Amino acid sequence: MPPPLPILQTQLAPGVIDLGLGNPPLSLLPLEMIRSAAQRALSQNDNSFLQYGAEQGDGYFRLALAEFLSKGYGFQVAPENLFTTTGISNGLDLLCTLFTEAGDTICVEEPSYFLALKIFADHRLRVVPIETDEEGLIIESLEEKLTRYRPRFLYTIPVHQNPSGRTLTETRRARLIELSRQFDFLVLADEVYQLLNYSGEPPKSFGAYSYIENIISLGSFSKILAPGLRLGWIQTHANIIKRLVTSGLLDSGGGLNPFTSAIIREVIESGDLERNVDELIETYRPRVALIDSLLREHLPAVTYSVPRGGYFFWVRLPEEMDAAELRNKAKVVKVDIRHGALFSSQNGLKNYMRLCFVFHEEKEIEEGIVRLKGCMEGNF
Amino acid sequence: MPPPLPILQTQLAPGVIDLGLGNPPLSLLPLEMIRSAAQRALSQNDNSFLQYGAEQGDGYFRLALAEFLSKGYGFQVAPENLFTTTGISNGLDLLCTLFTEAGDTICVEEPSYFLALKIFADHRLRVVPIETDEEGLIIESLEEKLTRYRPRFLYTIPVHQNPSGRTLTETRRARLIELSRQFDFLVLADEVYQLLNYSGEPPKSFGAYSYIENIISLGSFSKILAPGLRLGWIQTHANIIKRLVTSGLLDSGGGLNPFTSAIIREVIESGDLERNVDELIETYRPRVALIDSLLREHLPAVTYSVPRGGYFFWVRLPEEMDAAELRNKAKVVKVDIRHGALFSSQNGLKNYMRLCFVFHEEKEIEEGIVRLKGCMEGNF
Repeated sequence: MPPPLPILQTQLAPGVIDLGLGNPPLSLLPLEMIRSAAQRALSQNDNSFLQYGAEQGDGYFRLALAEFLSKGYGFQVAPENLFTTTGISNGLDLLCTLFTEAGDTICVEEPSYFLALKIFADHRLRVVPIETDEEGLIIESLEEKLTRYRPRFLYTIPVHQNPSGRTLTETRRARLIELSRQFDFLVLADEVYQLLNYSGEPPKSFGAYSYIENIISLGSFSKILAPGLRLGWIQTHANIIKRLVTSGLLDSGGGLNPFTSAIIREVIESGDLERNVDELIETYRPRVALIDSLLREHLPAVTYSVPRGGYFFWVRLPEEMDAAELRNKAKVVKVDIRHGALFSSQNGLKNYMRLCFVFHEEKEIEEGIVRLKGCMEGNF
Repeated sequence: MPPPLPILQTQLAPGVIDLGLGNPPLSLLPLEMIRSAAQRALSQNDNSFLQYGAEQGDGYFRLALAEFLSKGYGFQVAPENLFTTTGISNGLDLLCTLFTEAGDTICVEEPSYFLALKIFADHRLRVVPIETDEEGLIIESLEEKLTRYRPRFLYTIPVHQNPSGRTLTETRRARLIELSRQFDFLVLADEVYQLLNYSGEPPKSFGAYSYIENIISLGSFSKILAPGLRLGWIQTHANIIKRLVTSGLLDSGGGLNPFTSAIIREVIESGDLERNVDELIETYRPRVALIDSLLREHLPAVTYSVPRGGYFFWVRLPEEMDAAELRNKAKVVKVDIRHGALFSSQNGLKNYMRLCFVFHEEKEIEEGIVRLKGCMEGNF
């Protein structure tokens, strides 16, 4: 029999526990919810969503999304400030095309999401890392780099950051916004985890500042519904929206995902999306406590902060340990992690690892951490 | 009552006949076909297409597409040479990001598809136009420009070109491929109309040359099924595919449209796509003869070649006439066209207009041309 053709981006070999993988599991991707929404959307006598769509995205989809976000974010979101994307990666790529040129400088957090760094590399941007601490971006470090490099934009994951799990504080957000005006750079806020909160409410989404031209919030259905939909949004000032909708890509192809938007509009309007987010939170919340207790029990030499939302624990190993080496050892016992250097734009952070509590269920997480313990007690 | 929210990219005012618009009409976008495919795809106990998808595109979708193209193109298409996109505009945009930098030179046909030119402008590429005649690109003109400018790529619409309706001959294709190797540039062949043939078969798709690293064929479901799906493909050499699938965008977001691919795979496998293409051809074919006879009868001063496929008549007005002025006059009587200068990268071709025979039905086309006659008999 020929091997099956690839469908998934990541296919784990049998028995492998990938504690680093930042994907939702198949078991939490709500097929029935989407099937039923598709049936409703496609049974109406309206096939407009099969035509080239409005560049900004289907107006009724944006209206439904605005209402959903208004409730979830706790402030009024206007459909006029929303632009439909095929996900945050697509949004970042488009913003790079329209607002940068090869050789331009941008700033990112250190650590940052390693695959966003690859998008910036494809656009041949010079990346200047900004130090972070428990409260997120260190503003003094940012200010110093702004003065020196005059970046075109700052890419930040301000809430439950990937990989650090940290959230930028209110005070620092206010300073960041001031600086964005003073130094005239864009803030690209990747807020993919904004609605996944397990203890308390985070600061307001940067979408709350869409009256300021420099502030761009990027959101996605990948972590609150399903990544395969390739659907997301940008919330920003009318002038930025105008640049997006008049780009060649949009002018030529029309709206970025009219068909899927029409179906997901039904998921939102029925209340199913809100219910899905609630369920995800109930599922993920106990895992945070679980990982915390497992790490204390089995890996007492590591340090970390307990995340209040999102997907990740950012775990600091003893200073002399290299997480890439740990990763190699772990692979022998069929465990994987993500090593810190992946998230560094200067090949640093070698004694950190990212663990995700979303993809595997409780028993596998425990088994994975026990196996990891064996690797750490070995040659290190 | 508030005005309806925008869903469509182009919404004609009541009574307007837009003879220039290159969109399929809503009446030919097969809702029932897609509804039934969605029902089949979403009723199986497999939700893989909701997960981050394989970067190259769902393997089974590519297999179905390869079989469909093999039959339609008349040569063997391998799924390994196919990469799933969200349409040709998306493919062009991604290729520009990965293979060019701001300031690079590229070549395009004169005339060419004006919205592709906008995509190239967003990437800040220098566009060098290549003259064309009834047989497509003039190879001597291309060769001279290649020597002078060493472009990164040539963008061509080699079959039933937009706007000219012309098809690049076999002999010239062979020379173009030789030149692409000699001068080391990529050929980006936008073959959106390759399967819409109303009289005879065109030369083979450039996909037939995907064993050559310089040759990239771009295809789309927009004109053979529905634009709102945002689904297309690139057929090319393994090395180009490798660069695409290892890009930051793909590495981060996974395959570009897994959800829609899973549904459209059903449309292909059921034979519905092939039936749909056959129906479109039967619908469009008589309109070519109709426009030909209407132009002879009502606009005897113009010249043109009758297209053998695609969407467009490229109509030459008397030398002193400016189609942009004609367009302004026509708007008064609620008719629209596309004026030649839109398709020129050097603001030329002023006495040409593009007419499309796809969007409006026979009666409206006739009414539109009669109104246009009135405008031409006026002040010109």
